Amino acid sequence: MSNKLKGNAVVGQSGGPTAVINQSLIGVIEEIYEQEYINELLGAVHGVEGILNENFVNLKQIPRKKLEVVARTPSAALGSSRMKPKQEHCNQIFEVFRKNDVRYFFYIGGNDSASSAHIIDNLAQEAGYDLKVFHIPKTIDNDLLVTDHCPGFGTAATFVAQAIIGNDLDNRSLPGIKVDIIMGRNAGFLTASSVLARRYEGDGPHLIYVPERPVNMDKFCNDVCEVYDRLGRCLVVISEGICDEDHIPWAQRIQKEVEADAHGNVQLSGSGALAEFISVKLKEVLPGKRMRTDTFGYLQRSFPGVVSPVDAYEARYCGRMAVSYAAKDNTTGSVCMQRFGKDDRYRVETFVTSLDSVAVKTKSLPDMYINEEGNNINESYYEYVSPLAGPLPEVGFLRS
Amino acid sequence: MSNKLKGNAVVGQSGGPTAVINQSLIGVIEEIYEQEYINELLGAVHGVEGILNENFVNLKQIPRKKLEVVARTPSAALGSSRMKPKQEHCNQIFEVFRKNDVRYFFYIGGNDSASSAHIIDNLAQEAGYDLKVFHIPKTIDNDLLVTDHCPGFGTAATFVAQAIIGNDLDNRSLPGIKVDIIMGRNAGFLTASSVLARRYEGDGPHLIYVPERPVNMDKFCNDVCEVYDRLGRCLVVISEGICDEDHIPWAQRIQKEVEADAHGNVQLSGSGALAEFISVKLKEVLPGKRMRTDTFGYLQRSFPGVVSPVDAYEARYCGRMAVSYAAKDNTTGSVCMQRFGKDDRYRVETFVTSLDSVAVKTKSLPDMYINEEGNNINESYYEYVSPLAGPLPEVGFLRS
Repeated sequence: MSNKLKGNAVVGQSGGPTAVINQSLIGVIEEIYEQEYINELLGAVHGVEGILNENFVNLKQIPRKKLEVVARTPSAALGSSRMKPKQEHCNQIFEVFRKNDVRYFFYIGGNDSASSAHIIDNLAQEAGYDLKVFHIPKTIDNDLLVTDHCPGFGTAATFVAQAIIGNDLDNRSLPGIKVDIIMGRNAGFLTASSVLARRYEGDGPHLIYVPERPVNMDKFCNDVCEVYDRLGRCLVVISEGICDEDHIPWAQRIQKEVEADAHGNVQLSGSGALAEFISVKLKEVLPGKRMRTDTFGYLQRSFPGVVSPVDAYEARYCGRMAVSYAAKDNTTGSVCMQRFGKDDRYRVETFVTSLDSVAVKTKSLPDMYINEEGNNINESYYEYVSPLAGPLPEVGFLRS
Repeated sequence: MSNKLKGNAVVGQSGGPTAVINQSLIGVIEEIYEQEYINELLGAVHGVEGILNENFVNLKQIPRKKLEVVARTPSAALGSSRMKPKQEHCNQIFEVFRKNDVRYFFYIGGNDSASSAHIIDNLAQEAGYDLKVFHIPKTIDNDLLVTDHCPGFGTAATFVAQAIIGNDLDNRSLPGIKVDIIMGRNAGFLTASSVLARRYEGDGPHLIYVPERPVNMDKFCNDVCEVYDRLGRCLVVISEGICDEDHIPWAQRIQKEVEADAHGNVQLSGSGALAEFISVKLKEVLPGKRMRTDTFGYLQRSFPGVVSPVDAYEARYCGRMAVSYAAKDNTTGSVCMQRFGKDDRYRVETFVTSLDSVAVKTKSLPDMYINEEGNNINESYYEYVSPLAGPLPEVGFLRS
């Protein structure tokens, strides 16, 4: 025990909430109970903002039973933050750590959080202050580098699949054109997960568009018409980050079109605009048909009651392993997962990667998962996403 | 048995799907098994359209095990229809019934379905053809007259409550302004059900707007600013049918504003437009604040995996009772529910009302449930809606 780094620990949560980000937090708390040489565990309220203001919750005082309820609660229980700390903030954070004898810092978040953690780690090294920093991955977008997949993604994929199963049943019942817009501005992993909803002959989604593969509105409208002519209905899943051939997001293009048309008096903000204009364009090519566009929005990241047990387990495991790597192995870095086996034999092991290898950049949906025409997802993606998702409800039909 | 009306039966589903409309269908099938003098049970594919085209499924041939899976499946398993049959269609339907020796007709749907059933019943009476017609209520809007509440509503209310719990957790985690748009163009029952999400101090929704109480955009913006100033965040729930002081729906007003502004080149279709323009207006009064608007859309009526057990039971019970009233009591009408007792002692009994008492007109959210200012729902509504909803997930916080 004598060569162990003694002192306090800080844990924080950052970026968009997920359904299992609190599992990672509870994983950190659990594992810290085991490390006797770590005195206090301070929970930073609203991430880096909480550190800057020294607004902490003493996490060792929370009853165990309560922690289990928190673990099952979506969203960041400590509060999250969108703040990207600048160099001077990082200096200040480091001073707070030094003042409070903080020797361990665990930061649950995406690639921006990894960047912040990396800067703080560098400051500590420069100052000769012994600090172990660990980033714990979290994102429904699944776009972090190095790791096979990210905690939070499996549950979001389960929600999307479940929602699309419902939308497909709805569309079978009252045939028409239905377009669902899925989160993920730059990465198509979550949108592609809608393939999980295809289980029976004719099941939608019939078309899937991800941001990695540009598509223009004419091609899109033609695709929808073709499916509608063939099946008498069409369920389309589309990423909010869908781009045209100039790699300009549709949402942005639409904004410009409207502003030009309305002489600057109408401004679009994003949330409903893409849905709205897809409806309008499709109505032009399919007049008089039943048409509806829904944007699933925040439900994808914070709907309580739908969870992937694998995702919940892995999120907690990553939290525990971060503490173990930092406290037992005296290392700094980001927790990654590697998968072994598939289907029933699926399992993961964790390993450590450097903070800078996860910081700043993001991962795209690999090209091999996207069909040649750029309007669907290949069967092989099912193998990737299926073990990460939770069980999906069985459904029954009466018509052929 | 001799005085029983012998022949075949037809069952159909109509209007927007719900999560439990198939429970009512299975209820009809179950109870018809018990009536030996009813020969065939024909399921009309896509409601009245299936009857007109004589497109039927023989429902007595479906294995019992499969029926139980269908019962738990959202959306209309036989297919639904938005068609409002005109007099000549009703004549044609009546001819199909006569040709196929149909003596019982069960129609699961809203007030339009009750109207169709009423017209067909009148035709049979005029022709001296002995036909028993029963309407089985179904609507997530809960806007049918006479009955205490409608099958389908309780589950939709559960989904809305669960979604708002998640959105409130999300909003606590990353404070800002969040607006969620709920279904129900004319009736505020579903929007008002978001009160179920309030369980702890400070829980949202902080403001609730229903279509029954007009509000202008300035008052709305002031309300949001007031809550935001006080709490540092604001979760708003708003009906898609929200109206201004001239009783013109916002969605319609917005359409006109944009069309005028854009010289007719921009058209709005509804699904994203209301969300979009609420965002724009709020950004004008609260510039630079986190702002997001989501429209829950079809998820409210067809999300699989979230169900109110009470609603599922009652939907099936209404289906069974329709057959019992028609076949055993030789009556025609619509099934209604009456409640006795509250909380744990809540239970319902069914009774029959005439088809015309349910047809055409709809029910509004009673005024006593809306607060004086018209921006919130009174505590008393909780008592009305709570027994109808399913259990909601427990959540935990770490901050005060």
